[in-house]
Amino acid sequence: MRTIEWRDGTVVTIDQTKLPDEAVFLQMENVIEVAEAIKTMKIRGAPLLGAAAAFALALVAYHSKADNKRELVNELEKAAEILKGTRPTAVNLFWATDGILNGARCFSGNVNDLASFVVEEAQRIADEDVAANRLIGKRGAELVHTGDVILTHCNAGALATVDYGTALGVIRAAWEQRKQIKVIATETRPKLQGARLTTFELKRDGIPVTLVTDNMVGYIMYKRLVSKVIVGADRIVQDAVVNKIGTYAIAVLAKEHGIPFYVAAPKSTFDLGHTSADVVIEERPVEEVTHVGSRRMVPQGVNVLNPAFDITPLEYVTAVICEDSVLRKEDFAKFEANL
Amino acid sequence: MRTIEWRDGTVVTIDQTKLPDEAVFLQMENVIEVAEAIKTMKIRGAPLLGAAAAFALALVAYHSKADNKRELVNELEKAAEILKGTRPTAVNLFWATDGILNGARCFSGNVNDLASFVVEEAQRIADEDVAANRLIGKRGAELVHTGDVILTHCNAGALATVDYGTALGVIRAAWEQRKQIKVIATETRPKLQGARLTTFELKRDGIPVTLVTDNMVGYIMYKRLVSKVIVGADRIVQDAVVNKIGTYAIAVLAKEHGIPFYVAAPKSTFDLGHTSADVVIEERPVEEVTHVGSRRMVPQGVNVLNPAFDITPLEYVTAVICEDSVLRKEDFAKFEANL
Repeated sequence: MRTIEWRDGTVVTIDQTKLPDEAVFLQMENVIEVAEAIKTMKIRGAPLLGAAAAFALALVAYHSKADNKRELVNELEKAAEILKGTRPTAVNLFWATDGILNGARCFSGNVNDLASFVVEEAQRIADEDVAANRLIGKRGAELVHTGDVILTHCNAGALATVDYGTALGVIRAAWEQRKQIKVIATETRPKLQGARLTTFELKRDGIPVTLVTDNMVGYIMYKRLVSKVIVGADRIVQDAVVNKIGTYAIAVLAKEHGIPFYVAAPKSTFDLGHTSADVVIEERPVEEVTHVGSRRMVPQGVNVLNPAFDITPLEYVTAVICEDSVLRKEDFAKFEANL
Repeated sequence: MRTIEWRDGTVVTIDQTKLPDEAVFLQMENVIEVAEAIKTMKIRGAPLLGAAAAFALALVAYHSKADNKRELVNELEKAAEILKGTRPTAVNLFWATDGILNGARCFSGNVNDLASFVVEEAQRIADEDVAANRLIGKRGAELVHTGDVILTHCNAGALATVDYGTALGVIRAAWEQRKQIKVIATETRPKLQGARLTTFELKRDGIPVTLVTDNMVGYIMYKRLVSKVIVGADRIVQDAVVNKIGTYAIAVLAKEHGIPFYVAAPKSTFDLGHTSADVVIEERPVEEVTHVGSRRMVPQGVNVLNPAFDITPLEYVTAVICEDSVLRKEDFAKFEANL
């Protein structure tokens, strides 16, 4: 199945905090349930957050008792505020909600037609995410060759998207072309998306994967065990890529070792009206760092930082792979023109 | 108390795998118990491994029933082989056992005097480690100033040594001089020595400490939150510093951000007859990465790497702080002459 699906007025997804131990499916019926699942990272991954927010608005529209369009638009706007308050960094969530809201405000039919329109829009966003990932995979696979050992960080796979994945989409596409490649997954503290989710996806597909802790990246590059890095993105601004904490360090290390560093992301991740100075880096609960499960690993009262993302200036990025192009450093100036 | 102590024919230490939750003391009576404690990292930290190996030989000498020197030397040699088979990377263990063995082989008194000599040598090695750390602290503190935010990796503290610490010795000495500093400790996957031990030591001393995951180092340097890096070492060879996995990445990031990168280590850590090509990097059990406590975090059957150390070429090291000098890059050529 897809990571998120619309089923008869409900939204079904898999609880990503329970993987790989258990496959627990969540059936959500209203925007509060979706917002809570996003906050607690049961749903995570920038493109998936876009689809989830869209489906949350679809739930509002589908179940609304509004008897005029103005009322329904009000309900959608309130729901959008709730969704936007969940996680501040990934732009896809804002892109999806704003897109649907704009469409709703301009909609010319009656209230029932508007409700149907919102549901269809959400489904279109989900479908287009899958199509975008297939295109990204196809373009990106041209950069991948037999013998490559590709390091990826966090999870930019099917589980971070509606299906197929961005960084893992490129890896999947290359594998489907029978290129003999291997993958190194960083465990990605504190939430271990690499250890739990990326290894799970790749193993299921039969793609060779080796797990390392985040602090082994320097050493394995020094030992020449990595030939390329491919990661996803939570937001791409004029001057930088915002992605899971740890991405920037990997990019610096890749540059130091002359290893190409690619970012695979759909255009819904682009936010070229802003720069890195505008980006709010989400600080998540310190318990994610101090505890594993219910077990506390750290003495009481120790200060802890837990930024969920970091900022990689474009000078460290070899190219951004999106649906219709591979944008190299020299193309970044033309980004805005391309969109 | 000191991290390791000789008490009436036994060796007492604290089980570092149980900290900070519990203070469990181990009373060891023979070389097998010490070797097992080293292998399982109940005892860890390069200088402490030297002292522990010396005390293990003291246990052999103290309890020996040998009725001539040759027999006792044989027993010490067998014990040394067991100790050298525990962990291959930290050189202090080899330095301490070889030093005592050489002394024993050349010893001119009777077998009882030899046994006393070995016990005294072990105690001297432990005492000299504390004295060395105090000197390292004093020299290193000259490099530290009020306002500094010092990042350290793993635990190079009192718990990694007999007392006071190397990197944390420098921090302690600066703090004792009333320099207002702050420390950032990396958690240090997979065994979390930073999260468990470094925060524990610094908090106990009232030195402000903030914990980060290993993959946050790039970001906090990018945000200019770090002014210096000070780490310990497991072995210093002609061309490189060998230290806990993750050190090399921190050194590369420090260089990229123009942040001084210091290594604090006693001369017992120096192995200038060898180069990085000669160093065996210990691969530890994969369960250290896949499990937290008894809980498995990673799908079954995924390949895992677990090198315990990495290699930082001297070009990334601003200076090595040892007992009697601060060796800068330009002094490295004179290393051998200095010893």
